[in-house]
Amino acid sequence: MTLRARDLGEFALIERLLARLEPGGPGVIVGPGDDAAAVRVSQETVLATADLLLEGVHFDMGLSSPEDVGWKALAVNLSDIAAMGGVPRFALVSFGAPAGAAAATLEQLYGGLGECARSFDVAVVGGDTVQADRLIVSVAVIGEPGAAGIVTRAGARPGDLVCVTGAVGRAAAGLALLRAGSNDARSAAVLERFPSLADAHRRPAPRTREGEAAARAGATAMIDLSDGLGRDVEHLCERSGAGARLNAAAIPIAPGVAETAAWAGTDVMTLAVGGGDDYELAITIPADRFDALAEALAPIPVTRIGEMIEGTDAVLDRGDGKTEPLSALGWDHFQEDA
Amino acid sequence: MTLRARDLGEFALIERLLARLEPGGPGVIVGPGDDAAAVRVSQETVLATADLLLEGVHFDMGLSSPEDVGWKALAVNLSDIAAMGGVPRFALVSFGAPAGAAAATLEQLYGGLGECARSFDVAVVGGDTVQADRLIVSVAVIGEPGAAGIVTRAGARPGDLVCVTGAVGRAAAGLALLRAGSNDARSAAVLERFPSLADAHRRPAPRTREGEAAARAGATAMIDLSDGLGRDVEHLCERSGAGARLNAAAIPIAPGVAETAAWAGTDVMTLAVGGGDDYELAITIPADRFDALAEALAPIPVTRIGEMIEGTDAVLDRGDGKTEPLSALGWDHFQEDA
Repeated sequence: MTLRARDLGEFALIERLLARLEPGGPGVIVGPGDDAAAVRVSQETVLATADLLLEGVHFDMGLSSPEDVGWKALAVNLSDIAAMGGVPRFALVSFGAPAGAAAATLEQLYGGLGECARSFDVAVVGGDTVQADRLIVSVAVIGEPGAAGIVTRAGARPGDLVCVTGAVGRAAAGLALLRAGSNDARSAAVLERFPSLADAHRRPAPRTREGEAAARAGATAMIDLSDGLGRDVEHLCERSGAGARLNAAAIPIAPGVAETAAWAGTDVMTLAVGGGDDYELAITIPADRFDALAEALAPIPVTRIGEMIEGTDAVLDRGDGKTEPLSALGWDHFQEDA
Repeated sequence: MTLRARDLGEFALIERLLARLEPGGPGVIVGPGDDAAAVRVSQETVLATADLLLEGVHFDMGLSSPEDVGWKALAVNLSDIAAMGGVPRFALVSFGAPAGAAAATLEQLYGGLGECARSFDVAVVGGDTVQADRLIVSVAVIGEPGAAGIVTRAGARPGDLVCVTGAVGRAAAGLALLRAGSNDARSAAVLERFPSLADAHRRPAPRTREGEAAARAGATAMIDLSDGLGRDVEHLCERSGAGARLNAAAIPIAPGVAETAAWAGTDVMTLAVGGGDDYELAITIPADRFDALAEALAPIPVTRIGEMIEGTDAVLDRGDGKTEPLSALGWDHFQEDA
């Protein structure tokens, strides 16, 4: 018989879930189980971020394992701290599940969350558990500035290079292929050849080391790629009061993304610039600091993909004399399904 | 025509909602709109807590206004910081809403949240906005220890008095009466006579000043009453490794609770000890510190309702020679609807 959340009750369930996490950790004064957590920080500046992930909106239990969902719910928050040049330290995890959810599923979700926490030296110090009609995972993370202080979205200046870590389009391609399922022989063949695409959707790797290193190398602004390269560079432009021109030919497209675009009958830029969830970092930096940046981020590659410009236009240069606004390749939580 | 979330899109919606909050505040280095918030804290110990509120589980839009929901989502977190003897400082608000939700409703929700934030000198510094099939409000709060340091649930010792601020049963009575609605003439009459019962359910007042004052007066342990006096004193006993004996006759029952119990045909203790959501504080303290506690909390009353005892039994003494376990009067998120 399957043991379900309701068979355990809230408090026994919480005990089982907490057992999947590392107890304590450096700086944890009061961990889970009190009214609030108490933690020790080493600086007077503290970073804080939160993300809410919903079943059916941000993840699909048919495409991701419970472990994947737990990993990703924490990873996307660590990515936000990374994009400030910070070091994540502590997490609060609030989660909702149906009373009929299998206890094993919830334990697996916490297992993935704990794996991510251990990988990035983050302690889960508290949260909340409620009954819901579908899975909800809401995570808040507290971090500290890195050695070079914080880097916001607002510091980019015309003339700065726009750079990106790793390669883009992976997560959007992976999600498209996973959604097509195994009944589609062509998409299944692409997925079999490029399994890293599915991994990118399921288990994004936040660039925490790279964000701090970029700050030390002289990054003027940073943002992590959650909404998609195009939309996220737009955000950076808005906050910096400047424009950007990205060169389509320079954008590092992940292996398998072109094959996915060909299968889907879409432009590769739709996945690479319009597709979200890559959790790479877009970094602006004066041109004379680029070598230092590349050196600091190695072995993770960093590529110059364009530059900040005067004005407010954020455009993609296709190299054929035409440019198009980056927003034409974006998406929107509240409008896409309208 | 009603303006809806989908008509605005995510980013324009966020702009409108943020306009309902006070911008910035002491200690806010980077507020909403970047990857993470950056805030200045004055101590190396930081308190953190999070609560997740769901429409249909924690609030009913037929019984509470959007402003009430916003107020309560923040207030319950401030109450957690209060129960540590701390001072709340910053909040992250993640929220989900249907694409078809009226923009005005969401602005009202943020209006109530902003009102609570202003009342308790808390700055909303970030969060997340997602599309959901019903309203979800997930709040995390960062605070600092008060002048006397933190007070956990774990410090109560046999012989300590168990005390409670204010009076109990109000929120559970209010919810029962609101649910009965205006078609029930008897419950409507009780509600009209005791409107504070509905207020207690809709807009709980977190005891932030009192929590810090209790810590200074020598409180050995504290917990806020969210699950109900019985269940919450049990939690305190478990963490302190001791038992408790509460005297039913000493428990301060809020005006109208007895009338509500009479209408509902239930024992008044079911509402007062079993009912949740009062957000009063249960405080343990050595008997010789009680006068100092009462003095520190005035004008909010504090009442001795029992004492901590050896062992692990947490019981209610009805005064007729019989005791019953406090857990018999509690409730459980995952089991109650099973």
